[in-house]
Amino acid sequence: MRGRFITVEGQDGAGKSTNIAVIQRVLEERDIGFVLSREPGGTRFGERVRDMLLNSHDDEIGDVAELLVIFAARAQHLQEVIEPALAAGRWVLCDRFTDATYAYQGGGRQMDVSMISSLENLVQRELRPDLTLLLDVPVEVGETRADKRSEPDRFEQQKQAFKRNVRACYLDRANAEPARFSVIDASQTFVQVERDVRTVVKRFIDNVVSTDQ
Amino acid sequence: MRGRFITVEGQDGAGKSTNIAVIQRVLEERDIGFVLSREPGGTRFGERVRDMLLNSHDDEIGDVAELLVIFAARAQHLQEVIEPALAAGRWVLCDRFTDATYAYQGGGRQMDVSMISSLENLVQRELRPDLTLLLDVPVEVGETRADKRSEPDRFEQQKQAFKRNVRACYLDRANAEPARFSVIDASQTFVQVERDVRTVVKRFIDNVVSTDQ
Repeated sequence: MRGRFITVEGQDGAGKSTNIAVIQRVLEERDIGFVLSREPGGTRFGERVRDMLLNSHDDEIGDVAELLVIFAARAQHLQEVIEPALAAGRWVLCDRFTDATYAYQGGGRQMDVSMISSLENLVQRELRPDLTLLLDVPVEVGETRADKRSEPDRFEQQKQAFKRNVRACYLDRANAEPARFSVIDASQTFVQVERDVRTVVKRFIDNVVSTDQ
Repeated sequence: MRGRFITVEGQDGAGKSTNIAVIQRVLEERDIGFVLSREPGGTRFGERVRDMLLNSHDDEIGDVAELLVIFAARAQHLQEVIEPALAAGRWVLCDRFTDATYAYQGGGRQMDVSMISSLENLVQRELRPDLTLLLDVPVEVGETRADKRSEPDRFEQQKQAFKRNVRACYLDRANAEPARFSVIDASQTFVQVERDVRTVVKRFIDNVVSTDQ
């Protein structure tokens, strides 16, 4: 029996790490063998790429080159980690995947979305996550939490516009694929968010169990 | 007036460096401003990529990841060097380009050619070299020059098969695009090869001059 592929998406500060730990516990409670991974990274090559992207000057890597390098790391991640695990019947729980590329490169940086989808098809062929949890927080809430200053300067305003575009793209994708996405209102209390995440993951597991049998 | 894009292709030992110098002299004689570049490389990012590819273990980068990284470096090369030069009316003379990806990754490693052409269209859009000189040497000639041993071992035989596939792919491409390619018989003497290269490049320049006027 092939494993299942669960991804967790959301902007920084939405609570991804905390809720990935919640999902891990649910999988353990159900005795499901799984691999935990993350993007960018996940392989030695991916970590080199991550390092190269983080340690380059702004003008050294253009948008198209960066997009291709992100998908190069993803191809390696699929070949080395994700595909072998799924084929061996293990589940894969991944901190961000291709939806993040749509949200940040497509939504945030306004890159040509058809280029992203061409690369997605080329690198992943038929593979898509089976379940994606989107931890959604309104940009204003994130801003209020992180930033106490009253008047945002021009750079802050640009950052806010970027975040709003990222969020809008994530939500558009969730609306377009309701069977795969579960949107979690991450502006709730930790306890409420954890309860929602557990509910979604348990329901997904129950469905898989009844389908596979 | 937009510049022209000349590429030089061929396997190691075919005399690329020598004949690139010949082409440079012809361009200088005609007072044509040009940029000399090479692949992989050509930009700071490209050199990082070159370094990463050369300093990785065999099992660290899969074929698909490598192909994407090659095109990432190419995208940067186009954006930073090739496109600005051509737009400013300068010519670009490049030691290897996408035909080498078809020949080595497609022909030599037998990767899916449709994947290469998808990436070519994605990264280059309409851009193709205006003239490609293919320095062609039969594999046996190269082998005789480089290797004096009588009995090739299994690894040598594999290398020969690889080189034969690379050569066949280069020649197929030249046959399919005779208007762009000039195949030079590089098994001739240096003097004869230089004469052929000069003839091809001068004829190309004469054509461009009569077209642009």
